[in-house]
Amino acid sequence: MTETLRQYAELTRTAMAEAIAGGEPADYLYDLVRDYTARKGKGLRPGLLLAAADACGAATRTALPAAAALELLHTAFLIHDDVEDHSRLRRGRPTLHELHGVALAVNAGDALANLAVRPLTSTAFPRYRSREVLAELRLAIRQTTEGQALELGWRRHAVVDLTPSDYLELVGRKTCWYTTMAPLRIGAQLGRWRPEPAALDRLGFLAGCAFQIRDDLLDLAPGGQTGKTPRSDVVEGKRTLVLIHLLSVADPAERAWVVDYLNREPDDRSPADQDQLLTLMSAAGSLAYAERFAAVLATAAQESLGTAFADVPPSPALDFLRELIDYLVSRTD
Amino acid sequence: MTETLRQYAELTRTAMAEAIAGGEPADYLYDLVRDYTARKGKGLRPGLLLAAADACGAATRTALPAAAALELLHTAFLIHDDVEDHSRLRRGRPTLHELHGVALAVNAGDALANLAVRPLTSTAFPRYRSREVLAELRLAIRQTTEGQALELGWRRHAVVDLTPSDYLELVGRKTCWYTTMAPLRIGAQLGRWRPEPAALDRLGFLAGCAFQIRDDLLDLAPGGQTGKTPRSDVVEGKRTLVLIHLLSVADPAERAWVVDYLNREPDDRSPADQDQLLTLMSAAGSLAYAERFAAVLATAAQESLGTAFADVPPSPALDFLRELIDYLVSRTD
Repeated sequence: MTETLRQYAELTRTAMAEAIAGGEPADYLYDLVRDYTARKGKGLRPGLLLAAADACGAATRTALPAAAALELLHTAFLIHDDVEDHSRLRRGRPTLHELHGVALAVNAGDALANLAVRPLTSTAFPRYRSREVLAELRLAIRQTTEGQALELGWRRHAVVDLTPSDYLELVGRKTCWYTTMAPLRIGAQLGRWRPEPAALDRLGFLAGCAFQIRDDLLDLAPGGQTGKTPRSDVVEGKRTLVLIHLLSVADPAERAWVVDYLNREPDDRSPADQDQLLTLMSAAGSLAYAERFAAVLATAAQESLGTAFADVPPSPALDFLRELIDYLVSRTD
Repeated sequence: MTETLRQYAELTRTAMAEAIAGGEPADYLYDLVRDYTARKGKGLRPGLLLAAADACGAATRTALPAAAALELLHTAFLIHDDVEDHSRLRRGRPTLHELHGVALAVNAGDALANLAVRPLTSTAFPRYRSREVLAELRLAIRQTTEGQALELGWRRHAVVDLTPSDYLELVGRKTCWYTTMAPLRIGAQLGRWRPEPAALDRLGFLAGCAFQIRDDLLDLAPGGQTGKTPRSDVVEGKRTLVLIHLLSVADPAERAWVVDYLNREPDDRSPADQDQLLTLMSAAGSLAYAERFAAVLATAAQESLGTAFADVPPSPALDFLRELIDYLVSRTD
């Protein structure tokens, strides 16, 4: 599976590089626009899109402009997300706003979001396709900004009375649309065979939620995730499923401590306090709870995949898609 | 003229409001998205677009979705510009990031930039028109982010060796595209009669540059501009034509003082220092120089207007366009 994913990622990277080649001013804009793209990501999103397209009978060459557009858009999101989350590391290097300041980073994100649609406007990509994919991308942006607003708003306004279903609503918008739902929907749109739409969306939602819970857990793991600041979610007070579980099971005194922690500014959350929060999470079984939650979602995702693709002929691409969904929710990095 | 401008602005405002009605979460996202739009601007950009369309024979109803899209996009720019420029006031009220923090403001700008194209996707707007206008908007965003990068980069890297032609290159991208060039090009695109394209672009460039110089001068005037923080350009060290002139004519000691001023952080530029910079600008004739420069551009703009519309039949809309260009470059607020 890894080799296929790598090949898809490589193809996408080449298409992306073409879309953002050249341009002036380089030093204040286009070098920034190209920076995150040059830091190689795993290419999960284009991988999903190209695999879904292939499984549905669309050639990789046909689907590549859409994969490149989606991944460019994702990269533009990352630039603004890093500003919004005060992230300091991205793919092992300082974030764009750490390197160039918030102003130039925000502007570079705007420029990249605009350039992202370029691959779709090439004459090689049919106009009706372009219109359909653009509509999907706009829907994904809409959902993503709504989810991001919820997450940022909950933190800014110190909201603590949250349930797992609030979390799923948040993640359904913030993560699932551009990570799993849009890639699957766009990939399927490009092919001859059409998966069952409701089951495909369900697959995207379930796999995306499991992916995000896995991401939250990796952030808390010793050493954190490769290339990111470890436990940055703890520092920022992100409303993860783990935290929501802890808030719901903690005894009154512990809960009061956690609420007080969350009411403080990130800079006022000392390393000792961060350790304490992690200890509480572990003792309350919140980590194990999130693990189980993700496992249930992952199983349901595979079931939805079976339903969605029931009438689509078997193919190596479909096998790869199944493995990729599995990887998304079980990855250790 | 004012009454026509007001009517165009009112029509555009209604079309904009439709595009951004509803949506959840309201408190963390859509109320923010709607905030600047509710603070009524002058509507210069939609006014230009609708007047150009009307003069070229396109009904206002036909052109309105494009005017609304452009103005929504402009509003999205304003949100990010205010973050990038650390502006505190916009149309007489605190800026969005002052009210809700940088994170939610950046996210609201992203959401609004995405919603901005909605009026163009309505079934009432023909698809080929939509594609053409979208291409123009993408070009304008590209130019605007490039210009913004230059301006921010010059400040961040304390660039002082600048000429009036550097300034025109900056303003040509940062201001002219979305303020004057795109409105004129899009308006003309929608009509039967086609103005001469090169002269139309020249008109947009000249009028846009004169508009920006006027804007810079109003910022320096006692009391500043209605609804904005007075002399914020002085505090931020913006590379205006006035400042560039001062740097080029100041004697070595004065120039060293100005360079030192610009090398400091905005917070380290005291009110007394700001006064001193204004005094130097006035004594060096830099304000008068910029006034004259703008007047020359304004005259040239009217000449280009004549050339551009030479083969377009006379109409009240064309008369209004002429007056509006005049107002853009001579306004006192």
